[in-house]
Amino acid sequence: MGQFEAGTYDCIVIGAGHAGAEAALAAANRGVDTLLLTMNLDMIAFMPCNPSLGGPAKGIVVREIDALGGAMGKIIDRSHIQMRMLNTGKGPAVRALRAQADKVIYQSEMKKLIETTDNLTLRQAVVDELIVEDDEVKGIVTHIGAIYRAKTVIITTGTFLRGEIVIGDLRYSSGPNNQMPSVKLAESLENLGFDVVRFKTGTPPRLNSKTIDYSKTEIQPGDDVPRAFSYETTEYIMDQLPCWLTYTTPLTHQLINDNLHLAPMYSGMIKGRGPSYCPSIEDKIVRFADKGRHQVFLEPEGRNTNEVYVQGLSTSLPEHVQRQLVASVPGLENAEIMRAGYAIEYDAIVPTQLWPTLETKKIKNLYTAGQINGTSGYEEAAAQGLMAGINAASRVLGKEEVILGRDEAYIGVLIDDLVTKGTLEPYRLLTSRAEYRLLLRHDNADMRLTELGYEIGLIRPQRYAQFTEKKRQIQEELERLAQVTVKPTEEVQAVLAEANSTPIKEPLKAIDLLKRPEVMYAHIEKIAPADTPVDEQVAEQIEIFTKYEGYIKKSLQQVDKMKKLENKIIPENIDYDAVANIAHEARAILKEVRPRSIAQASRIPGVNPADISILLIYIEQGRIAKVSNE
Amino acid sequence: MGQFEAGTYDCIVIGAGHAGAEAALAAANRGVDTLLLTMNLDMIAFMPCNPSLGGPAKGIVVREIDALGGAMGKIIDRSHIQMRMLNTGKGPAVRALRAQADKVIYQSEMKKLIETTDNLTLRQAVVDELIVEDDEVKGIVTHIGAIYRAKTVIITTGTFLRGEIVIGDLRYSSGPNNQMPSVKLAESLENLGFDVVRFKTGTPPRLNSKTIDYSKTEIQPGDDVPRAFSYETTEYIMDQLPCWLTYTTPLTHQLINDNLHLAPMYSGMIKGRGPSYCPSIEDKIVRFADKGRHQVFLEPEGRNTNEVYVQGLSTSLPEHVQRQLVASVPGLENAEIMRAGYAIEYDAIVPTQLWPTLETKKIKNLYTAGQINGTSGYEEAAAQGLMAGINAASRVLGKEEVILGRDEAYIGVLIDDLVTKGTLEPYRLLTSRAEYRLLLRHDNADMRLTELGYEIGLIRPQRYAQFTEKKRQIQEELERLAQVTVKPTEEVQAVLAEANSTPIKEPLKAIDLLKRPEVMYAHIEKIAPADTPVDEQVAEQIEIFTKYEGYIKKSLQQVDKMKKLENKIIPENIDYDAVANIAHEARAILKEVRPRSIAQASRIPGVNPADISILLIYIEQGRIAKVSNE
Repeated sequence: MGQFEAGTYDCIVIGAGHAGAEAALAAANRGVDTLLLTMNLDMIAFMPCNPSLGGPAKGIVVREIDALGGAMGKIIDRSHIQMRMLNTGKGPAVRALRAQADKVIYQSEMKKLIETTDNLTLRQAVVDELIVEDDEVKGIVTHIGAIYRAKTVIITTGTFLRGEIVIGDLRYSSGPNNQMPSVKLAESLENLGFDVVRFKTGTPPRLNSKTIDYSKTEIQPGDDVPRAFSYETTEYIMDQLPCWLTYTTPLTHQLINDNLHLAPMYSGMIKGRGPSYCPSIEDKIVRFADKGRHQVFLEPEGRNTNEVYVQGLSTSLPEHVQRQLVASVPGLENAEIMRAGYAIEYDAIVPTQLWPTLETKKIKNLYTAGQINGTSGYEEAAAQGLMAGINAASRVLGKEEVILGRDEAYIGVLIDDLVTKGTLEPYRLLTSRAEYRLLLRHDNADMRLTELGYEIGLIRPQRYAQFTEKKRQIQEELERLAQVTVKPTEEVQAVLAEANSTPIKEPLKAIDLLKRPEVMYAHIEKIAPADTPVDEQVAEQIEIFTKYEGYIKKSLQQVDKMKKLENKIIPENIDYDAVANIAHEARAILKEVRPRSIAQASRIPGVNPADISILLIYIEQGRIAKVSNE
Repeated sequence: MGQFEAGTYDCIVIGAGHAGAEAALAAANRGVDTLLLTMNLDMIAFMPCNPSLGGPAKGIVVREIDALGGAMGKIIDRSHIQMRMLNTGKGPAVRALRAQADKVIYQSEMKKLIETTDNLTLRQAVVDELIVEDDEVKGIVTHIGAIYRAKTVIITTGTFLRGEIVIGDLRYSSGPNNQMPSVKLAESLENLGFDVVRFKTGTPPRLNSKTIDYSKTEIQPGDDVPRAFSYETTEYIMDQLPCWLTYTTPLTHQLINDNLHLAPMYSGMIKGRGPSYCPSIEDKIVRFADKGRHQVFLEPEGRNTNEVYVQGLSTSLPEHVQRQLVASVPGLENAEIMRAGYAIEYDAIVPTQLWPTLETKKIKNLYTAGQINGTSGYEEAAAQGLMAGINAASRVLGKEEVILGRDEAYIGVLIDDLVTKGTLEPYRLLTSRAEYRLLLRHDNADMRLTELGYEIGLIRPQRYAQFTEKKRQIQEELERLAQVTVKPTEEVQAVLAEANSTPIKEPLKAIDLLKRPEVMYAHIEKIAPADTPVDEQVAEQIEIFTKYEGYIKKSLQQVDKMKKLENKIIPENIDYDAVANIAHEARAILKEVRPRSIAQASRIPGVNPADISILLIYIEQGRIAKVSNE
């Protein structure tokens, strides 16, 4: 096959799923000449599994992506069929927005955004090979021999990398939905010496809506107030479609137990590790054998399709068993399967081979993002894509690398977990993974990240001005509330009664009144109104900050403490063999992970506090030595 | 691999492109339990080449499909971005409607229609094998071992059957846009002993609209009057997008001549025959070397995408040459290629192996439709799909087979050409293929076919009632015009002057006045109005019938003559070896084609009038013999 020079770019992104799309947009929007290559232009930003975004932790990630200037939030705001704020009755730390997507519109909107973005070239091509010279990536070669040279390359191959569909006793080479897998690129990565693991994920059957008896299910409507992921969204889709809830039955469980020998997970057909937080129905029934039933959500895949996603029935049992399973669920007795569920195995690289910028340690200027790094989930993929895109652009532009702290964003938690701890199964973000949950809220993603988004050029000046105005208002109003005195007038007592709050006996500061859990900003507004009424979002921040001040301050103190360790940088060229007395296991793993700070080192499983102390002393000495050498 | 019984249907359709969609809808709408299987549910009714439907002959086919109760017309009416009636200045026989499609919406609308149709099950599956017993198809086996049994099977594999993409000196196994090809099914067909040919087709590059300088091109707007393909359409999309026209340059031609050794068509890489009426740019430049320039139309692929189809630049030259070619065209100097053009080779079966019902002669109850039968074009595919679906349903229902005459429909011409003459290259419908062009008009597709559509149950009673009412109005108004006398009053002369027609000297019948080419029905309406004004479509039929009466009658006489031969049925069990004196070549080809009538026999290339005479005598004798035996 003849090869030919096809062009030179600053950044090449391989794959245009949720990671690739964000990576390419971020790099291009930072002013870097970017090429986005995908196997099939008709499958950009496709949702091969559940037609939804958000939910606990993940929903906050979408907000963070938006605060940093990414696309996912804007696109879902234009393409959803339903939006719900989860846990509205609970504290602000666990509130999370969740959207059902119209899959086709989501794709189409993302494709259009990519097509119309400056500095971004979108092209259909299958990438077969990386060009690497002296451990530095120089470009790629496509299956038709086109050589594209680039300063940086980002790989986002999802489940395509040596993808194999497994269903019953059958296994065949394939991407999702019988698309071509990416085999040659997998070989190219292997040849470069990357440690590769096999992971698996799965998807449930899709049913035809006309064959479902919804009268046997419970309706799950969306919220009837306008909701949006993006801070930029001003138009809201209010016309929403409901989802439906039903349950597995004893017959479902019986069927699974009877057919377990046919389940690839149990028959030994599947060797790849699946995500334990996203188990198949056969997994759930085996692992939670005492649970009488499991939820099954019926989620429409869009406005103009009858396909319904069956959340909760992910399975790779043979198709004939799937039919029985489906029929055993109330409402689905006569449901027609349009697509059978299946498991898919694919190559992922061991993510401890990455720097926190998502650059590979082995090959300079090569970044990876999304499922190839061992994660699962569209949001996790998009978050990594964004960060890889930002950092590849930083490299090209000679600017600082961008690494989010665990106290700054769920995205920080995600990437730190990956590169520090690695993962034994497809990694999914959970609120429990974050130690500063009260700081990483849905509502304050902008407060945490807009500044940074603006600095790196992904937040436009107009939006930034709106953000600083919001921040100013919060500050000003907090100050005002700390000064204004509320007296025990009749009017005040009436408002407090309305709030089910006890009357006040003496004058007190408005802010102290707001600290009462039952007193909302709306009440204060009646008692001690501001000259100019503040925006709802400003009021929300004031409320949360006032009510949770104690907890938030405590979290921030912990962060400070941790930061001191984060600031203790471990020199890149440290020779762990020269660090005496460190435990053998810790030494091996430190050499592999190469943590950038003492804080990161302390989070590595297998590295004990004693090792950290030794390391700390070694570095402090090294630093002194360095200073004295200058 | 374990196989399992997955269900029994009346009819299974393999493939959900333009042929498969119509086939499945037709069978299901005739009340037959139908299963439609496709590799990827996200690619239903995809347009892998030009984003348009209609034009000369093809546009009339879409109308015919609609008159028979098919879907294509309705779907394009809901999904177009532009509609134009071509040749409005010319006679009614060459008028044709052409639409630019929004590809994504077209797909989505067709998918939804399929999903919501009764008796129709849509499922994602790859079909690997046909189950055939005693030369009769009994079902299919999917790649995961699901056995579906059926009374009839329709294969519509498009370009997927052992598809191979060819570009420059490269060839690789693939369906369009790097999708999986269908290889095992090809082997299954081969094993059944079908004669298979390799055909090829090609597609031009797609460009990003933002990189095109439209100021160097000519705008091609749509019509600003409401247009529709379907007789059922009542809502019209009036918001239209323009196309743009530019031309190749001497540099384009130079580039092609310089790189001809790299063109797969000329280097010997491609063995499959391509459609000569849809040539690649390299073909055009070689075959029409004296032509200074060729038209290049820039057609948007939808409302929400930047992809632009470059009609006229179909090519399988290497990608780097494609870039130069594109850049050599005014307006495209800096145009970015989003998808490169390519050629695709695929298996087609020799269509003389089919009965005019599209059932294969070799395997009973097995039908084929679309590109597998050696045609090109979405409309040709849809038309065959419709007829195969209708006939498979007839078989299941024990009803009469449905074969359209060459005088009834372009669809009749298409199928008769295929099964009678075969084809040496991908067959495309052209007006020149029809001998009764004046009968097969855009405007009268309903008059020709609605009755039949209703008889077979594909036209609903309400629509049929509208149709009979229209027919009644035409008849009544024609009768009235033949009776009403127009007198040379001042008012009449004024109207004639307005029509640029000479004054009348004596009273004459309104119908005779309407025969004047310059006198329209609107003029007659002023002079001799009907009690109730007739509908525009009725007026159109009256005008055309009156003005072209002589030609139409002549055509009808020819049809009558031909019908006599069509009615001379050749017994299915005829032994051509027993027909003495027939020419050797004719005998061989008659044995292969097994024509159903003397008329069909007379159209077979290689069968001469002398052979027909001998055959006629043989059959007449046979008939007499048969009668005397009774």
